[in-house]
Amino acid sequence: MDKIKVFVEYLHENEIKKAVILKKENINYFLERYPPNFSVLVFEGEEGILYVPKLDYEMAKKYEKDNLRVEIFEKWEDIFEGCDGIEETLPIKFLKHISKDYKIISDKIKEMRMIKNKSEIKLIKNAAEISDKAVKYIMENLENIGNKTENELAAEIEYVMKKNGSIRPSFDTIVISDKKTSYPHELPSNEIIKNILLVDIGAVYEGYCSDITRTFLLNPSKKMEEVYDIVSNAKKEVEKHLKEGVSAKELDEIAREFMGEYKEYFIHSLGHGVGVEVHESPTLSIKAKEDVVLKEGMVLTIEPGIYLKDEFGVRIEDLYLVKKNGFKKLSNAKY
Amino acid sequence: MDKIKVFVEYLHENEIKKAVILKKENINYFLERYPPNFSVLVFEGEEGILYVPKLDYEMAKKYEKDNLRVEIFEKWEDIFEGCDGIEETLPIKFLKHISKDYKIISDKIKEMRMIKNKSEIKLIKNAAEISDKAVKYIMENLENIGNKTENELAAEIEYVMKKNGSIRPSFDTIVISDKKTSYPHELPSNEIIKNILLVDIGAVYEGYCSDITRTFLLNPSKKMEEVYDIVSNAKKEVEKHLKEGVSAKELDEIAREFMGEYKEYFIHSLGHGVGVEVHESPTLSIKAKEDVVLKEGMVLTIEPGIYLKDEFGVRIEDLYLVKKNGFKKLSNAKY
Repeated sequence: MDKIKVFVEYLHENEIKKAVILKKENINYFLERYPPNFSVLVFEGEEGILYVPKLDYEMAKKYEKDNLRVEIFEKWEDIFEGCDGIEETLPIKFLKHISKDYKIISDKIKEMRMIKNKSEIKLIKNAAEISDKAVKYIMENLENIGNKTENELAAEIEYVMKKNGSIRPSFDTIVISDKKTSYPHELPSNEIIKNILLVDIGAVYEGYCSDITRTFLLNPSKKMEEVYDIVSNAKKEVEKHLKEGVSAKELDEIAREFMGEYKEYFIHSLGHGVGVEVHESPTLSIKAKEDVVLKEGMVLTIEPGIYLKDEFGVRIEDLYLVKKNGFKKLSNAKY
Repeated sequence: MDKIKVFVEYLHENEIKKAVILKKENINYFLERYPPNFSVLVFEGEEGILYVPKLDYEMAKKYEKDNLRVEIFEKWEDIFEGCDGIEETLPIKFLKHISKDYKIISDKIKEMRMIKNKSEIKLIKNAAEISDKAVKYIMENLENIGNKTENELAAEIEYVMKKNGSIRPSFDTIVISDKKTSYPHELPSNEIIKNILLVDIGAVYEGYCSDITRTFLLNPSKKMEEVYDIVSNAKKEVEKHLKEGVSAKELDEIAREFMGEYKEYFIHSLGHGVGVEVHESPTLSIKAKEDVVLKEGMVLTIEPGIYLKDEFGVRIEDLYLVKKNGFKKLSNAKY
């Protein structure tokens, strides 16, 4: 069913007269299109109203449909007048415009966003195909990779993605090698690539994200090969259990147990939902506040990793669509 | 003087015991380095404490200095305990952790951020040199530009910037041609470039941004040439008045008046401050709530534009450092 209709019904049921949405990703979610940089989505009555600056009005008119109108933004007082439904991320500076009896609408949006509809899955699949192309590019150039700096390869990867239709990387592209791979989130530098190469990248297509990691063994030590196999097999072990009905914590636990003595070096969660944000619900972590039982239509990453301080790190990550009896892999780049 | 020291003094003077900073750009400002994706900066006593996830701790330790420590983030309750100074952008979900007697620290940070110190100017200059290189690349390929799509050229531009050290574009790269130029914020498509080409781009260097726009007359009509000259000369007219002491509104007014009958098609403000955000204070607009008198050390864009619906648009933008008796241009790409 139409997302706007579902949300309007939720508002009626909860006696919320007017809801204001500022978070760009939530607006993207309701439009299923990348919104203008400044936009505000207001729900009132049976429809959504997208407010944009005057200079973007003509451009944004293309987004109009049955229950979505586009209007010119004038002032915050107008936007918030009568508003009683707000996001938990609303900046506190806007509180002065709002009556004290507001309700938080974020949980409903989070819940809706967790299950992807067909057109969303198509957009994420598009994004995943774009990042696959970047991995393929690396594979085709693997022999010469030792002549490049991390920054150079990062630039080439982003070029391949942009040329294939990505608006921008879904997060700061990670292309790191050698000892730096032991830092999960290090950024590329002007150092020459050597020994081991970790590439964690994503594309954005109409606002929908992809996320994939490959670790390339260029000139590996025995230990690197050993750790690589453990990470790779931990991921396969998780895949055996990945389907509707399994709990997110359980999956994380499976990966950790599989790692044996290395499990203390798996210093982040197993994965996360992906949609209009590259990190969204559910979080696949034994440390998460609440557990989530996976459902068909969820799109998430599985990304086990082992990081040995002052030595190296390995992470392998793919993107999955959860199905009733298993999953469909959305990222498919070979290494 | 050291930024952290200045801010700590401000907190003491205003009897704020503990200030919490979540906005990534503000953290970037105090570090003068690009921070890990999740980080929280807390000011307490005489020092700043940067909280990062455990997995980024080793990486972030490099940021430590005299009055800046790095700690592992555990939970929000700890961060906000005793906090009485918050940003106006704090998401309302955190309000439950905070005593009702908080003060807003954003105005002070905004004020500090407006005047750039020497090392910040150097970083912005670096970013501007990177985007200059992308414009130079277009100039060198101008003869073949009619064979490319907007998306292709956008990919090439971002490649040139990334290869030259940009972390990412400072905003979604605008590469649009023909009628689409009449929408100031349209995004690139798979259409072939023709007639007139508007390129609005920026780089990010250690978190500091640049911003430059060039409009290329490929196969221009007489009217395009006429409008181009008006925009170009409006910018030169503004430059005559650009120095410490002039008011932001006055500059915008000068550009508008210069445009004569075209002024109604100048549908955005004349410019904006640039630093760790590509749009920050001051805003150079007759419609701004408050006027700002320019001061030495401010870095801002001047970007007049004229947009004729269903026809075309022209915008020309450069980046300037305000000086006592004039300015220094930070973007220098020729067209």
